[in-house]
Amino acid sequence: MSGAGPELRLPSSVVDKAVAEALAEDLGLGGDITTQATITAGTRASGVIAARKPGTIAGVQLAEAAFKTLDPFTQFEVVVRDGGRVDAGGVIARISGDARVLLTAERTALNFLGHLSGIATLTARYVAAVAGTKARIMDTRKTTPGLRALEKFAVRCGGGVNHRFGLFDAVLIKDNHIVAAGGIGPALERARAQSGHMVKVEIEVTNLDEIDEALRLDPDALLLDNMDVSLLLAAVKEVAGRVVTEASGGVSLDTVGAIAATGVDLISVGALTHSAPVLDIGLDFDPLS
Amino acid sequence: MSGAGPELRLPSSVVDKAVAEALAEDLGLGGDITTQATITAGTRASGVIAARKPGTIAGVQLAEAAFKTLDPFTQFEVVVRDGGRVDAGGVIARISGDARVLLTAERTALNFLGHLSGIATLTARYVAAVAGTKARIMDTRKTTPGLRALEKFAVRCGGGVNHRFGLFDAVLIKDNHIVAAGGIGPALERARAQSGHMVKVEIEVTNLDEIDEALRLDPDALLLDNMDVSLLLAAVKEVAGRVVTEASGGVSLDTVGAIAATGVDLISVGALTHSAPVLDIGLDFDPLS
Amino acid sequence: MSGAGPELRLPSSVVDKAVAEALAEDLGLGGDITTQATITAGTRASGVIAARKPGTIAGVQLAEAAFKTLDPFTQFEVVVRDGGRVDAGGVIARISGDARVLLTAERTALNFLGHLSGIATLTARYVAAVAGTKARIMDTRKTTPGLRALEKFAVRCGGGVNHRFGLFDAVLIKDNHIVAAGGIGPALERARAQSGHMVKVEIEVTNLDEIDEALRLDPDALLLDNMDVSLLLAAVKEVAGRVVTEASGGVSLDTVGAIAATGVDLISVGALTHSAPVLDIGLDFDPLS
Amino acid sequence: MSGAGPELRLPSSVVDKAVAEALAEDLGLGGDITTQATITAGTRASGVIAARKPGTIAGVQLAEAAFKTLDPFTQFEVVVRDGGRVDAGGVIARISGDARVLLTAERTALNFLGHLSGIATLTARYVAAVAGTKARIMDTRKTTPGLRALEKFAVRCGGGVNHRFGLFDAVLIKDNHIVAAGGIGPALERARAQSGHMVKVEIEVTNLDEIDEALRLDPDALLLDNMDVSLLLAAVKEVAGRVVTEASGGVSLDTVGAIAATGVDLISVGALTHSAPVLDIGLDFDPLS
Amino acid sequence: MSGAGPELRLPSSVVDKAVAEALAEDLGLGGDITTQATITAGTRASGVIAARKPGTIAGVQLAEAAFKTLDPFTQFEVVVRDGGRVDAGGVIARISGDARVLLTAERTALNFLGHLSGIATLTARYVAAVAGTKARIMDTRKTTPGLRALEKFAVRCGGGVNHRFGLFDAVLIKDNHIVAAGGIGPALERARAQSGHMVKVEIEVTNLDEIDEALRLDPDALLLDNMDVSLLLAAVKEVAGRVVTEASGGVSLDTVGAIAATGVDLISVGALTHSAPVLDIGLDFDPLS
Amino acid sequence: MSGAGPELRLPSSVVDKAVAEALAEDLGLGGDITTQATITAGTRASGVIAARKPGTIAGVQLAEAAFKTLDPFTQFEVVVRDGGRVDAGGVIARISGDARVLLTAERTALNFLGHLSGIATLTARYVAAVAGTKARIMDTRKTTPGLRALEKFAVRCGGGVNHRFGLFDAVLIKDNHIVAAGGIGPALERARAQSGHMVKVEIEVTNLDEIDEALRLDPDALLLDNMDVSLLLAAVKEVAGRVVTEASGGVSLDTVGAIAATGVDLISVGALTHSAPVLDIGLDFDPLS
Repeated sequence: MSGAGPELRLPSSVVDKAVAEALAEDLGLGGDITTQATITAGTRASGVIAARKPGTIAGVQLAEAAFKTLDPFTQFEVVVRDGGRVDAGGVIARISGDARVLLTAERTALNFLGHLSGIATLTARYVAAVAGTKARIMDTRKTTPGLRALEKFAVRCGGGVNHRFGLFDAVLIKDNHIVAAGGIGPALERARAQSGHMVKVEIEVTNLDEIDEALRLDPDALLLDNMDVSLLLAAVKEVAGRVVTEASGGVSLDTVGAIAATGVDLISVGALTHSAPVLDIGLDFDPLS
Repeated sequence: MSGAGPELRLPSSVVDKAVAEALAEDLGLGGDITTQATITAGTRASGVIAARKPGTIAGVQLAEAAFKTLDPFTQFEVVVRDGGRVDAGGVIARISGDARVLLTAERTALNFLGHLSGIATLTARYVAAVAGTKARIMDTRKTTPGLRALEKFAVRCGGGVNHRFGLFDAVLIKDNHIVAAGGIGPALERARAQSGHMVKVEIEVTNLDEIDEALRLDPDALLLDNMDVSLLLAAVKEVAGRVVTEASGGVSLDTVGAIAATGVDLISVGALTHSAPVLDIGLDFDPLS
Repeated sequence: MSGAGPELRLPSSVVDKAVAEALAEDLGLGGDITTQATITAGTRASGVIAARKPGTIAGVQLAEAAFKTLDPFTQFEVVVRDGGRVDAGGVIARISGDARVLLTAERTALNFLGHLSGIATLTARYVAAVAGTKARIMDTRKTTPGLRALEKFAVRCGGGVNHRFGLFDAVLIKDNHIVAAGGIGPALERARAQSGHMVKVEIEVTNLDEIDEALRLDPDALLLDNMDVSLLLAAVKEVAGRVVTEASGGVSLDTVGAIAATGVDLISVGALTHSAPVLDIGLDFDPLS
Repeated sequence: MSGAGPELRLPSSVVDKAVAEALAEDLGLGGDITTQATITAGTRASGVIAARKPGTIAGVQLAEAAFKTLDPFTQFEVVVRDGGRVDAGGVIARISGDARVLLTAERTALNFLGHLSGIATLTARYVAAVAGTKARIMDTRKTTPGLRALEKFAVRCGGGVNHRFGLFDAVLIKDNHIVAAGGIGPALERARAQSGHMVKVEIEVTNLDEIDEALRLDPDALLLDNMDVSLLLAAVKEVAGRVVTEASGGVSLDTVGAIAATGVDLISVGALTHSAPVLDIGLDFDPLS
Repeated sequence: MSGAGPELRLPSSVVDKAVAEALAEDLGLGGDITTQATITAGTRASGVIAARKPGTIAGVQLAEAAFKTLDPFTQFEVVVRDGGRVDAGGVIARISGDARVLLTAERTALNFLGHLSGIATLTARYVAAVAGTKARIMDTRKTTPGLRALEKFAVRCGGGVNHRFGLFDAVLIKDNHIVAAGGIGPALERARAQSGHMVKVEIEVTNLDEIDEALRLDPDALLLDNMDVSLLLAAVKEVAGRVVTEASGGVSLDTVGAIAATGVDLISVGALTHSAPVLDIGLDFDPLS
Repeated sequence: MSGAGPELRLPSSVVDKAVAEALAEDLGLGGDITTQATITAGTRASGVIAARKPGTIAGVQLAEAAFKTLDPFTQFEVVVRDGGRVDAGGVIARISGDARVLLTAERTALNFLGHLSGIATLTARYVAAVAGTKARIMDTRKTTPGLRALEKFAVRCGGGVNHRFGLFDAVLIKDNHIVAAGGIGPALERARAQSGHMVKVEIEVTNLDEIDEALRLDPDALLLDNMDVSLLLAAVKEVAGRVVTEASGGVSLDTVGAIAATGVDLISVGALTHSAPVLDIGLDFDPLS
């Protein structure tokens, strides 16, 4: 993210809840029995959180909260903010504080940071692959259960944009809805009639005839699902900028450039959130004095 | 899993809580506004949940719960149980019920099934790669925050075994604990003195001298961290079966076979839970009548 | 609601949570000590829930859930569904079951039903007052804290439509946002740039110049705030159907007809949810045998 | 409230929970997307919360908590405390802080303040209408589900008194309890026998004979339900101060004076909490610099 | 409890919450790993819950819920209901069902039953020790944190009565309140002025002068704290039945008879809930077939 | 605890949750109505928490949290830490702050402190009774539902050690598991095969033959259940230090010395947590100025 972009921040209530649950899962009711036994109370420690591989960072807020939930006096200096890039070995944050706290929260902090930075990094690769086109890379609802707000945030950190959050905040009419409603026309009419004026409506189309049928009812966007590149090209030409176009299906780092070149506005990629490998990030302690 | 193995079941309270949270995330307070608008109340539907790629299945309980939480009268026939394998196209379950319920719960069900089956499938690949050795494939605490119970279950479905659940149920003394405690000896002594008799103690060692030092204090297991194959071989020989040995670090599908051939008892693999791609699974509806 | 309209149903999770909290508030940890003392266990009772005044009903699902949460075997026959109208004395539901359960849940059931039917009834009066125009009556975010999903549902039961649910699901740029962003143009540009393609954007305007300025950036809707009728008329003429228009401010049953006659698409009325008096509804027990 | 009265404060746990739920409802998981897009991080703002109409204030604690939950460094200067009166235009509080926080929390703060001040203002009107009599104005259990603690507090702010909180903290024997128990006598005897010594018992009576029957068993209070003024007069004379008397039913601002003049101790008014219109209160921002 | 007494039942919501928390504490996220490993799925078992020592039973509802929460099809036949007495060896309930479920829930069920029956049994001993007097045995707020509703229920099962539930449902003015308020008179006046008409007021007195002073302001009850028997006798004579009298302090099974003989109405005993030893109750399985 | 021992601290999340629930139980939604009525806002108070009887202290953290949850500015000076001993009259802590807060939180603080110190004191008596032997005193799962983490902590404060926390963190094979699995051998084999390498396995044995059978499969510990002293002596001799031995059943302060003299490693005592009487601790206020 360049300095001109928007600040990328998660709401603190989302951060606090996610961190509390993750710590509870790791600490149970008995806490970190290894650290309690081996580290004398009052011992101080410091270190750096650093990336082992290059990537785009997401989740620094969560890492900070993991340590500060256990001890609000932990020092946590952010070196790279969410949305920033690091090289291999790049320092993301410097921490110091109670040695027990640092050791106990370490894994929780790194699990958030690695998972979300993995998503941001993969997103950034897709974004780079469409550079020079107008297409934007977008997520889907194929997220890890319970982590959608965090993962959609990580997509933004990687330079992507978000599709609807869930089933409740926008209408997306897919094939089965169309069949059940009796066609594209009735489906769009029912959706418009029952949705408030602040709700957008997108509909799935699979060929040019369906595009024409849909455009007569003025949807906000068309989902061009599983079209090959030549059909996408024809579809974009047919739409002629009247509504937003979204390509989905069969998108990979190998294919996304060609898809973007068709002129679609958005390319949605489930893999951003369901198949991104972790970004390898570690905590290197300074020698304990 | 062969028929002779243990039944693989998650506690129902774990399933119910995970599914309720995932549905809440997707439905918000307004529910599935697309389906409400386009599908007439009372419409029935049926279909199959099927794998697009071959793999090992985990999460069928969660998928079933996603539909039944919305409508307990949904029919859900399990074809492949957790721990079972499917070929590409293989049917995992057949469902029928209220069309609105099937469409609304579809993504939540598939998100669980795809994520956990991805973990089980990757685990099974590692297990296959060490076939013929005595080594078992094991997970770590590098899990997605909030999903540890589910992800460790998926590892078992894939034929792997579980390391400790969290910081509270076993002692694992790592490098920083050793430094802070003043050495391997004092660290082990303090851990033993303060742990109940039902708590196991494992300690990280990096060379043969440390192995000897540790073995004098009778730990339950040794973590052979980031040793190359020749050092692992020497370590296993040095231990001579006196305690359980765990290899970790630098494990991939390419290297795991050679690591297993050294004779270690356990190989822990963070990638099982932090970098497994989704197993592609979909819901194919029968034509709506 | 005529038979041709959509079915009006709240998600069961919303109903269950609201009812559980309301019962908890009334029962505390000790329960209904009057009924426990005076009604012998096993006594049966029956009765009708009836309106004392004419109105439009909302909340029958919640009333039913109040009784069934305490005893799932309570018989609850719905006579008038949510969205239906009753005359004074009209029966809404017939109930029978354990006498203790009926007496204990009575007030919780009636509190929901009276409050939400009050909102539906007031909404229906506004809807009737704009009959013959194209204007639709709409709610606001001026709802009772914690009850927004229920109150917005009640507005739909009364024939109204819903504005955005909260701050998260649509963009509504008001005067202070415009000032802070440096004008209508920059505000709209920033909102568009940072919002996903499924998010609608509405902006507040106060005169014809602002309308022109806003329309150049293609918002989804204009909020015509606190305009008098002659200005509204000019505004609607200026917009000429290019975007949705919403009138707000100074709306009462006396003024809403004239406002609707200006041709605006939507009239938002805070009073629907912040000042609707209860609809008087009671439970008349049959003589106890 | 004069300065001599008790301090009117809600428990902080009640305030915190209500505010957290209201903010969660308005912010969802994505937060205030309008403000995030249009207001630059770090912008400061200030303003006043002021009444548009005269009234009695309740809910200042909640308004303050709405802002401070999002940013504890928000300045919030209370000008009128709960229980105080304001004229039209009267300032209730002055606030300054992060502009995003003020705009995001504004509606939640005003929703609490308007709703509760509406109740306090209506209560104060009833209290004024019985001035010069010994009657006190009292609430009922006809409260908005989930808000009982707040609404009963608002009644106190308006100068009223509270009836029992719920079904668990006092015994109120009504007509159906009497029928089921076999009469006033058995009902009172059973209630006394099963209630602890710190639990008060009130019973509904409808005529003078029932008053005599009830008084023989020494209840703590009599509920004179739906009696006209002449019967109330006779009832009060019959009771002759031996127990507390409560009039209920048919109470309005038109009738409450005459009811109070009969000499009853308490007059319960459901409308205080189920039909009070909002007190119109707004937040006026100082010009943004 | 004789058959003529009231039915002793806890609200199901209280039971369900307590049992869910207790099971969660024992099962964690991994469940009963011993039973999963050693008992084949589908194995059936049966047995009896029986007392090893004579006593009074409380908590059968909770024991039943412990098993049925894990498997609603568990058969649970109640032989002795809450409030009933058993001899040594007496059967309390017969159970049958899934062997895994019975073994997993056993300890949770017995922990509730033993703890609450211990309280009921000790209460019954105190009740027996005052037989022939009018004094009733009463609990205090000295309960185990989190279990007050259950423990007060157990006191009723043992034939005792309950004092106020908490700080919120009745006024009990103790020495420090009196000092702070400026004496018995001001304290009682302030309490009366600020309490609703359904709230009872009790005040602590330590000598006959204070009794006279208090009685002039008509409290509902007097707490005769730490008086010796001769002073209690004088106090009861002084009160002469005008208000309820409660003796507290220095009460044991040795002294309670003499205290009761003074004619006090109530004797409160903290030991009922803070020092009752468990009643030894076990689950005897029938031979597994 | 001598100064050389480990620091005894509960995780703050465990403390905070327990205290919040206990305060909620005592305060309800209305708070401490006695204190609100009788103590003027702003009054200050101070005092000491002191033991009435000698004992070992546990729960000081919880007592402190009870006051500080209501007012973080309360001064709380710890005089005796958890695990320390007091004589009769010994001061445990000095407090000062808002008089209302001290009076309102007093009972919650003392309930925690009395209950847990009761357990610590009883544990310390058992520990003293086995002084000079190698036996350690250990708790069981016979804890008060919902309080296991606190009660097991109190056992440690008294010098005891903890058995497994729950069903999830270690395997303990008892008689019914053995029967169902088909004998000691198959039970141990199944447990080993299905448990991770960090899970310990203990098995119940009742005679010397069973000990021999069990030892062939290398369990981590043997539960010598309900053996008399002569059999225990023979069992310890038979085991000859190869595994940890635990004696249970029939343990009292009278018998524990002889049991310890047999040479067993551990003696588990259910009474520590299910039958410890409260340690009498009070709060003595300084005279209110």
